[in-house]
Amino acid sequence: MAQKAIPDIVIGRLPIYLRSLTRLLAQGRQVTSSQELGERLGISAAQIRKDLSQFGEFGKQGTGYNIEFLAKKIQEILKVDRVWDVAVVGAGDVGHAVAFYGGFHQRGFRITQIFDNDQEKIGTTINGIKVLDIEQLEEKVKKANIKVVMLTVPASVAQEVVDHLIKAGVQAILNYAPVNLVVPQGIQVQYIDPAVYLQNMTYYLD
Amino acid sequence: MAQKAIPDIVIGRLPIYLRSLTRLLAQGRQVTSSQELGERLGISAAQIRKDLSQFGEFGKQGTGYNIEFLAKKIQEILKVDRVWDVAVVGAGDVGHAVAFYGGFHQRGFRITQIFDNDQEKIGTTINGIKVLDIEQLEEKVKKANIKVVMLTVPASVAQEVVDHLIKAGVQAILNYAPVNLVVPQGIQVQYIDPAVYLQNMTYYLD
Repeated sequence: MAQKAIPDIVIGRLPIYLRSLTRLLAQGRQVTSSQELGERLGISAAQIRKDLSQFGEFGKQGTGYNIEFLAKKIQEILKVDRVWDVAVVGAGDVGHAVAFYGGFHQRGFRITQIFDNDQEKIGTTINGIKVLDIEQLEEKVKKANIKVVMLTVPASVAQEVVDHLIKAGVQAILNYAPVNLVVPQGIQVQYIDPAVYLQNMTYYLD
Repeated sequence: MAQKAIPDIVIGRLPIYLRSLTRLLAQGRQVTSSQELGERLGISAAQIRKDLSQFGEFGKQGTGYNIEFLAKKIQEILKVDRVWDVAVVGAGDVGHAVAFYGGFHQRGFRITQIFDNDQEKIGTTINGIKVLDIEQLEEKVKKANIKVVMLTVPASVAQEVVDHLIKAGVQAILNYAPVNLVVPQGIQVQYIDPAVYLQNMTYYLD
């Protein structure tokens, strides 16, 4: 599919639509509507129709969306109709949590490498995945042609690790370290920083 | 401060500005500019000036922003110039990770309660915080007047737990379970679902 100039904010909502559609499918449902999705997601039906219309005609007026077809389309758009190999850097609590999360595979991702610098962890396995020495990070990631990384190291070393990941050809980094990363243009970075989300919410509290 | 109709997307960027400002302060810096912040954050300087101008005049043309003053202002706006008590529901890997994260306090949050349903975990402590029986969730959260919760339970029970939290008076939920929650109007929910962020990034990959 040709890359049109779809606003980032629309792209950001597609995985959320996909999650809801997958859940509806798991419940045995076949058809949904922008109204129903909107109620589930707290997004207006008009916004959902507008978002989806950017990628073509998915639904017919009055008959709703075929869930399986729409989910498949969104998977194609997001390029998760394939499975991406993922490296996790940092085998602490968060590294453990993501390694054991069973939902990645059906959502397009498979963790194949975990790295740490702790000699007591190196060589052990987490959910069947061997923990590798972070000294081998650049070499191993490059060799496995891994493009997607989850970064769960302490903030103090995050940028240094990222510099190695960029050299290894990584193009997308999900950063759990509470620090802004500097990356070359074209490299994707997303942040998971719980305090940011908490602060976002407290604005609305009394 | 009166609640003007600031777009949610602007509010969403304030914690990120605050994180950068705090980091600059820790590095001993006193003054910054929208240009510098923009380069660090990958946001245009014009956007940053526009965002901040919604809340008043923080910077002077040509002299930049006083970092400490601006950080303090953003803390006030986000209501994190106080410390919010937080309950963590779910004492698994993610619950552990957030309980041990040392950065919450300076960012406006303090975890004071952790709940689980596992008899082997109840009564133990995590980073000095006693794990409580989830059967007591509603009662304990209400009594402690906790408004902010981090939800790290499995997706299958997340909605049920949330219903109890709402009854207990909780107003803001940071949800790590990969499922959309249904909450009454006015209740804040933010989602931390790594697959959503990963899928957001793969759209941009080749």
